[in-house]
Amino acid sequence: MITISEAASLLRNHDKILLLAHIHPDGDTLGSCFALCHALQDIGKRARVKCWHDIPPVYGYMFDGLVEDDFEPEYVVTVDVADLPLLGGGAEVYGGRIDLCIDHHAKSRVIAENNYVRADAAACAEIIYDIIDRIGTPLTPVIAACLYTGIATDTGCFRFSNTTAYTHAVTAKLMELDYDFSEINRLMFDSKTPQRIALEATVLNNMEYCLDGRCAVSVITLDELHETGAVEADLDGINALPRTVKGVVIGITVRETSKGVYKVSVRTFAPYDATEICSLFGGGGHIRAGGCTVKAESAETARDMLVKAAGELLEKTK
Amino acid sequence: MITISEAASLLRNHDKILLLAHIHPDGDTLGSCFALCHALQDIGKRARVKCWHDIPPVYGYMFDGLVEDDFEPEYVVTVDVADLPLLGGGAEVYGGRIDLCIDHHAKSRVIAENNYVRADAAACAEIIYDIIDRIGTPLTPVIAACLYTGIATDTGCFRFSNTTAYTHAVTAKLMELDYDFSEINRLMFDSKTPQRIALEATVLNNMEYCLDGRCAVSVITLDELHETGAVEADLDGINALPRTVKGVVIGITVRETSKGVYKVSVRTFAPYDATEICSLFGGGGHIRAGGCTVKAESAETARDMLVKAAGELLEKTK
Repeated sequence: MITISEAASLLRNHDKILLLAHIHPDGDTLGSCFALCHALQDIGKRARVKCWHDIPPVYGYMFDGLVEDDFEPEYVVTVDVADLPLLGGGAEVYGGRIDLCIDHHAKSRVIAENNYVRADAAACAEIIYDIIDRIGTPLTPVIAACLYTGIATDTGCFRFSNTTAYTHAVTAKLMELDYDFSEINRLMFDSKTPQRIALEATVLNNMEYCLDGRCAVSVITLDELHETGAVEADLDGINALPRTVKGVVIGITVRETSKGVYKVSVRTFAPYDATEICSLFGGGGHIRAGGCTVKAESAETARDMLVKAAGELLEKTK
Repeated sequence: MITISEAASLLRNHDKILLLAHIHPDGDTLGSCFALCHALQDIGKRARVKCWHDIPPVYGYMFDGLVEDDFEPEYVVTVDVADLPLLGGGAEVYGGRIDLCIDHHAKSRVIAENNYVRADAAACAEIIYDIIDRIGTPLTPVIAACLYTGIATDTGCFRFSNTTAYTHAVTAKLMELDYDFSEINRLMFDSKTPQRIALEATVLNNMEYCLDGRCAVSVITLDELHETGAVEADLDGINALPRTVKGVVIGITVRETSKGVYKVSVRTFAPYDATEICSLFGGGGHIRAGGCTVKAESAETARDMLVKAAGELLEKTK
């Protein structure tokens, strides 16, 4: 593990720098990569960003004014990539020759010549802010917009418990630049496809309350899903909805993925352990967010299996 | 207009201080009042908070450990109250004898012996943070929790354009204290009644797209509203939903309030002026958020009237 000054020095002392983002790219990996790319180009380096998945158009503002550098990379950096497979096709191309891994995942596993990992950072963008500061490049509006995006998306706009005093301190600095952060927030958090709207309507409409209102379940069938026209990307965050109901401590979504097969998500509040429900059906996950797959004759049967397990968990947990 | 040091001195030099919150109390007026009340009690003052509307139980953590002071007030302070009528019943009791008005509304109209108004503050809680700092009382977890609540609720958890670098700088300080800010965010933003869930399901389910997807309208009839069981408090924020759809620049909700009478909300994005639609029906409001009431034979007729007006606005606005 190197220090942040060493990480900044390594970047300052190299050229033709390739920055690798993780697949299923999100605001943090892209914001971190593009912010660093801008900063490196601003001091005369050749640098570019590569992601093996397409970059969603919503992030277009991140590469405003960026030079499309074409070069044979001499220095390869992974940014916000927790593990090699998350490079997608890039794992095969660059797996053995990663020079620097910059990351904030506690279980960061990328094997690189040098690693700079800070697990207490809410977003990788916090680390990139510090690195750019050490490199000595002045912040520009586009760099600030990229870093703001990374921080806002990885913290649920400062809502989640990973947010720290330092997160806000960095953001205070980023807010001094001139870019439309509220438009970024709108794009990231308040902009939904009509299909997503239809899907949410169905999930909310199908919400059932049981076990004295302590458990909420929403079941969505394959037919209903098709009717909404929703695609994979529209499903993101849907599983969180049942647990947002007042008084609910176990929120469950049951989504039919093929005839008679149901993908289940369980979200709980303390002290309830979601994995205790999911492991009954061969699944697992985290203590407050687990998943499993159940086979059942009908959606109702699947639901009843889950509710029974939830009832038992409520019963046995003090 | 006095300075912040003068405001702090006035509070330090008085006792038996009554802090008045506005009616329909929200996180900012309550967080600001209770934070200041704690701080004043912490330096040995007698102080209490009064609001002429009931304080919703969700804010209970704000008065943890607060002494229930009973005294004849010698110094009366309004906090986050833009105008006298917003004191409700308190206007008559204290209207002529307000000693200090602390506020962040640009159009702050309370007549007081002294006014300290800072319209660039995203939340009144930012100002209270500064005043407590000048008074010299150390922050405690409960004071920080109150101020955090005020800032988070008035900025939509740092999303809205009123948020500034200073907002984040103050929050960075508040985050150094030990309280569960993510639980506060959950209570404020992610906790909905089953009736609210049913209402959202209906609003989303009734969403219709027109004018090439640039306008979204959701109509909700009296019968539908009753079916959800939603009460007034559940309606908060519902009007924002149609404009959250990708591509939509004019979002309209049409809610039947009595047979044949429809309350309309219009939300727009730049450059469209919501009041141009609302004024056609005798309403008004702000440039991006207007309202009006229309009478129509049916919900469909009401909707068609609004869509026609929206189409004309799209047509004539370049």
